Order: sequence, then C-alpha cells, then structure tokens
Amino acid sequence: MTKEEFLVTPYTVEGNINYEKLIKKFGTEPIDNILLNRIKKHTGELHFMLKRKIFFCHRDLNWLLNKYENGEKFYIYTGRGPSGKMHLGHLLPFLFTKWLQDKFNCKTIIQITDDEKYLFNKKKLEEYTKQGLENIKDIIAVGLNPKLTEIMIDTYNSKTLYNNAIHFAKRLTISTIKSAFGFNDSYNIGQYFYTSFQAVPAILESVRQGKNIPCLIPLGVDQDPHFRLARDVCPKLGYYKPAIIHSRFLPPLQGIEGKMSSSKEETAIFTTDDKETVRKKVMKYAFSGGRKTLEEHRKYGGNPEIDVSYQYLYQLLEPNDKKIKEIHEEYKSGNLLSGELKQIMVKKANEFLEKHQKARRKAEEKIEKFLIKD
Amino acid sequence: MTKEEFLVTPYTVEGNINYEKLIKKFGTEPIDNILLNRIKKHTGELHFMLKRKIFFCHRDLNWLLNKYENGEKFYIYTGRGPSGKMHLGHLLPFLFTKWLQDKFNCKTIIQITDDEKYLFNKKKLEEYTKQGLENIKDIIAVGLNPKLTEIMIDTYNSKTLYNNAIHFAKRLTISTIKSAFGFNDSYNIGQYFYTSFQAVPAILESVRQGKNIPCLIPLGVDQDPHFRLARDVCPKLGYYKPAIIHSRFLPPLQGIEGKMSSSKEETAIFTTDDKETVRKKVMKYAFSGGRKTLEEHRKYGGNPEIDVSYQYLYQLLEPNDKKIKEIHEEYKSGNLLSGELKQIMVKKANEFLEKHQKARRKAEEKIEKFLIKD
Repeated sequence: MTKEEFLVTPYTVEGNINYEKLIKKFGTEPIDNILLNRIKKHTGELHFMLKRKIFFCHRDLNWLLNKYENGEKFYIYTGRGPSGKMHLGHLLPFLFTKWLQDKFNCKTIIQITDDEKYLFNKKKLEEYTKQGLENIKDIIAVGLNPKLTEIMIDTYNSKTLYNNAIHFAKRLTISTIKSAFGFNDSYNIGQYFYTSFQAVPAILESVRQGKNIPCLIPLGVDQDPHFRLARDVCPKLGYYKPAIIHSRFLPPLQGIEGKMSSSKEETAIFTTDDKETVRKKVMKYAFSGGRKTLEEHRKYGGNPEIDVSYQYLYQLLEPNDKKIKEIHEEYKSGNLLSGELKQIMVKKANEFLEKHQKARRKAEEKIEKFLIKD
Repeated sequence: MTKEEFLVTPYTVEGNINYEKLIKKFGTEPIDNILLNRIKKHTGELHFMLKRKIFFCHRDLNWLLNKYENGEKFYIYTGRGPSGKMHLGHLLPFLFTKWLQDKFNCKTIIQITDDEKYLFNKKKLEEYTKQGLENIKDIIAVGLNPKLTEIMIDTYNSKTLYNNAIHFAKRLTISTIKSAFGFNDSYNIGQYFYTSFQAVPAILESVRQGKNIPCLIPLGVDQDPHFRLARDVCPKLGYYKPAIIHSRFLPPLQGIEGKMSSSKEETAIFTTDDKETVRKKVMKYAFSGGRKTLEEHRKYGGNPEIDVSYQYLYQLLEPNDKKIKEIHEEYKSGNLLSGELKQIMVKKANEFLEKHQKARRKAEEKIEKFLIKD
C-alpha cells in the first residue's frame, strides 16, 4: 500500500485515510453547513462533533429531517463489535448517540455483535459475549436513557435477529457480499451471512410497530458497507432505507494512519486505563506534530493536523470551541510545545476517564434494565 | 441428462437413480445382512423397510451399535422441509423413526425447516411456517411418543439453532458448500448458511447434557450432503459424528425417475387425499409395469420393478412379507393384471390413509405437547 492508498471496510482499516476521497468512493454525501443549520433548528445547538466534521458525511439525512418535520419521529440504531476492551475511539459514536437521543427524544437500539467477533476471530464465543457485557458498561456510562434504550446482544436476541435476518439474507447473493467486503471462497458461511444480522435493527422498530419508522444510524465510516447492502434490501421488504451519519476514526496513538486497535494495548487509551497508564502511554507513544528541536519548533511551529494529542482533544476531549482554537493557534505558532500539548491532553483524558469510570461502575447494576428479551 | 445419469442433492433429485452407484458416489456403506442381524439382536424383529432395503445404506451404524452395546444410548434426529402438503413418500422416514423410537426407547428430535423452504422458494416465510404446522400433524400421526419426541420449528427455535449453528458455520467455507451442493455465486447467503442450521440437532442432546450422546439420523438419501458436512465439523467441536441411515425415494406416480413432488398434485398421493382422489390418481397416473395387451401380459408377465403400484406396496403399504411376495409372483407370472394390481394398491393406500387421517385429526390438539421452547 503506497502513501496515497487506504482501505476501509468493516474488517480492514489501513493507510492514511483521505476522508474526501472516501466520500466519493462510498458514494455518501458530505455534511455541509446548510445541513448543519437545518439540524440546529431542531437541536438549538450543534454538537461539537458536528461542527468539527468528526461526523463528516451521511446518507439521507435530509430525507430523515423531512420526515421529522412532517411529524414522523425516528429512532437511532448503533452498535459495537465486542472484540476487546473499549478505547476512547469506540466511545465517539455513543457519545454522539446520547446527544441525539437527548435532543430528539429518540428510542435507541444498540446491537452487540458477539457472534460476528466469533465468526471473524479466534477466541471462544463465550469470551466475546462476556466482552460484550463489559463493553455495555461503557455504553451505558455515556448516559443513555434506560427508558429509551434497548441493548441487543446477538446471541441473547438471536431469535428476533435470525427471523428477520433471513429476509435480508434471501436478497443478498454471494457475489454482492464479495464486492462489498472483499471476501473470497475461503471465508466461512457465517462471515457471509453475518451482514444480514447487522441489518435487522435498521427495520426492527418498523417490524414491531407494523408501520414504517425512520431510522438513523450513527457509526464509524468503516461500517458503511453493511448498510449499503441493507439499504438496497430495505425497500424490497417494504421498509424505509435507514439514514446514516458517519464518523471519522480517532487515530491510533502512534500516528494518524488506520484506526485504534483493541488488540494492541499501546495503540489506544482504554476506558479502564488508570491515570498513570494514560500519562505513560501518551508521553511514550502519542505521535507528535512538533518539530525536531525546540528551536525549530519555536520558529516554525507544530502541525496539529498530524499531532495525535491535538487530534484527541479536537475530536473528543475538548468540546470548548474557544479553547481548542487557542490550543491550535498556540501549537501552530510554536508557543505551545509538544510536551506541553501532551500534558493538556493527559489532563483532559484523565478528567474525562475519571467521570466515565465512575459512571461505568454504576452501570454494572443497570445492565439488566437495558437488555431486551426475545 | 442421459438415461444413465442421475443427480441427488438436497435441492435436486433427477433421473433414474441407481442406488448402488449412489452408495459409491456418496461414500456410504450398504446395509448388509450381517448388519441386519446385528440390529435384529436388539429389536427382536426387523422392520420391513430394513429387510427390503428401503433403508439401503448408512454411515457408522456399526459404531452406533458398538456404543449402544457398551451402554451409551443414542437419540434420533430427523426432519421435514415444509414446502407443501405431505405425501406418502414423506411419511416413510417418520414411520421408520417411530419404529426405532419404540424399539430403542429413544429420545427423538424432529426439525421443521420453514426457514430453509423460504430461502429456497418463492412464498412468504409465514406460509412455510403454517405449512410446517400442518406437516407436524402428519408427523405426530405416525404415533411418535410425546414424552420422547421434541419438534423444533426453525423460526420458533432460532435462538437455540443459531447459537449452535455458528459453530458449524465458522468451520464451513463457501468452497465447501459449493462442492457439496453445486451452488454458485448467484445463490443467496441464507442458502449457503442454512446447512449449519440443519447440523445443530445432530449435536443438540450432547450440548444440553454436557457430554457426548450418540445420534442416529434416518433420512431420505438426498439429505446426505448436509450431514457429510456436519460430520466433518462435529469432531472439531468435540462431538461425535452422527450415524446415518438412508432411505430410497418413493417414486412419483408417473414413473420411477426422481422423487415425488409436493408441488405437482398429480405426481403424489397426499396424506389428506380422500378415497376417491386416491383411486383416480392411481388409475389415471400410476405408471404400470404391465404389458401392452392382455395377451402379452398373460404370456410374459408384468415387471414389478418399474410398476409404481407395486413399488408403493413394497416400500410402504404392504408390510406383510408373504403377501408382497405373492403379489410379486402373481404379477410377474402374468396372473395378476395391472388393473388388478392398481386395485390392490388403492385398497391398501386407502386403508393406510383412513387410519392416518384419523390419527392426524387427533394430532391437532397434541401439537403443543411436541413443540419445544427455546
């Protein structure tokens, strides 16, 4: 893979992702200011992840707002593949989902895909289910409303999921899956079938209510191929296509290529990391956009676009627009040194995690309230 | 397809099936007299379908008997794809299953594959589920013991089935499915995945009891490819391979090629046909092994091997060995005319169906007792 190349599928994220090119490649629409203003009319204020284009593209958001403005409430669907512990990047769509839920008073379905992780990886099924229950604590900890939120675990809710999935499965050929995911004939039949499970929550409220309910899916852009397929099938089943809003990836600590990985401890800050671990990881691994020498840095300034600490602050940890702008300017001008920027990032990360970990501990008792029965 | 050619898969049965060649093609073992005597030691008498080699080949029956003789009881698993009404041919494995259940006092699991029929055919899912419930009446009517028998409907028990199916699915590649079933890339992902659902009941008792329980599957030989795959995977999951005993097909009324079809009314005698319908179908459609003229018939005799009425008597309707031998001789010698043979067959079929239909009506109230909760 050359410097210009990148690959984004639900199963591989590689290279230096050019999000503008990705929009063209995937055929999504960029989120522009007209759309942002339209959202703002309903929400009063804009989430910083919208203003900053962390959620950077979409499918059918204008259609969704048309429906909303005509009195058709939508519900939200998002999910998590429990491959391991959750890191800061994983929280991003859930934090945004919580905001959407509050602003639009939306019913929310969250799918935990333990079966998927089993079909694509090496551990026992039970380990992914267990990991899923751990991840649910993080998801609840972002503050989702138990009265509005349902969490489905694929192996707990496989009856509902399978009985609806076969309608998608019947309409998706092997050829279609190959071109969407790049699989070949040596992949297993579970991997091919799985996408039909991920499609189900996008119609589930409509199935339950016996009428079409619009659905909005906030997700990391790598998950888009699943929903391109689901969106093709939905109208054939008589359902609305779900609208989608896509986020960028929080980069790995080591640099802005790819996305963070749960399987490599040192590439990510985990939601359960303690203060000292966070400090050490950032100091040791966080890729810096600073210059080689203090002198050069003071003279030419740092590059916030490739500085991982800055990116974490911008994408997640510093919602205050004035403050982030200040940091950007100070760093670019050379007044703020890389080490100092890292200190800011560590402080913000630890403040964020202190609050999150407290909520996470409380979430343990609440899990049952969120799980649904088949 | 030339006269010599035939095709047997779960999804296509065509041509004039040569069962000896099929044994070689599938790699099964013929049922010989040594094996029959071994079974007889336990059952006291042999079912006529064994003596007559209607159940004509097997996999690992000797292994199963070894286990049995060493004190490991086995359970039985068979099933039904509810594509339409049941005809006489469909009853064959169930009648044999009932005999096995009685003789060995076996727990029995029956799977109704409404999802499969939906994935491979054109009607709505609900219609196959409904058809499955109709078929269950026929299955119960053969006299299965409700205390020993569990009937699973795939969409009712999809949680149990899916959560176990993914273990098979993970170990079956697209290539493997292609070579077993002759599918290509234009088949849907549900069709590919489905075989993993059919595998589950072959390990289910072992899963439930947390230890290996031998399983015997009586089935129409067309279903063998599913279990060739399942048998490859079972040991990888730590379970015994199921033993299998395979039956021939009751031929369509029109002649001994292929198997009867539920979708063509005139090719089959349905379990719900009334006496007059049976008479008319046999008289009009049942392929005769008789000679062209009365004179020739008296002189050269009829051919019972290709005479459909004789085959129905031999395979299903006349369990009495002495009587069937008599009919065979009389027909072959020319004493018994085709019309007379048809009359015998109609009489026996209607006696059989009168009893069956009475039991079928009573079965309606019993369905709930047989269905299992997930």
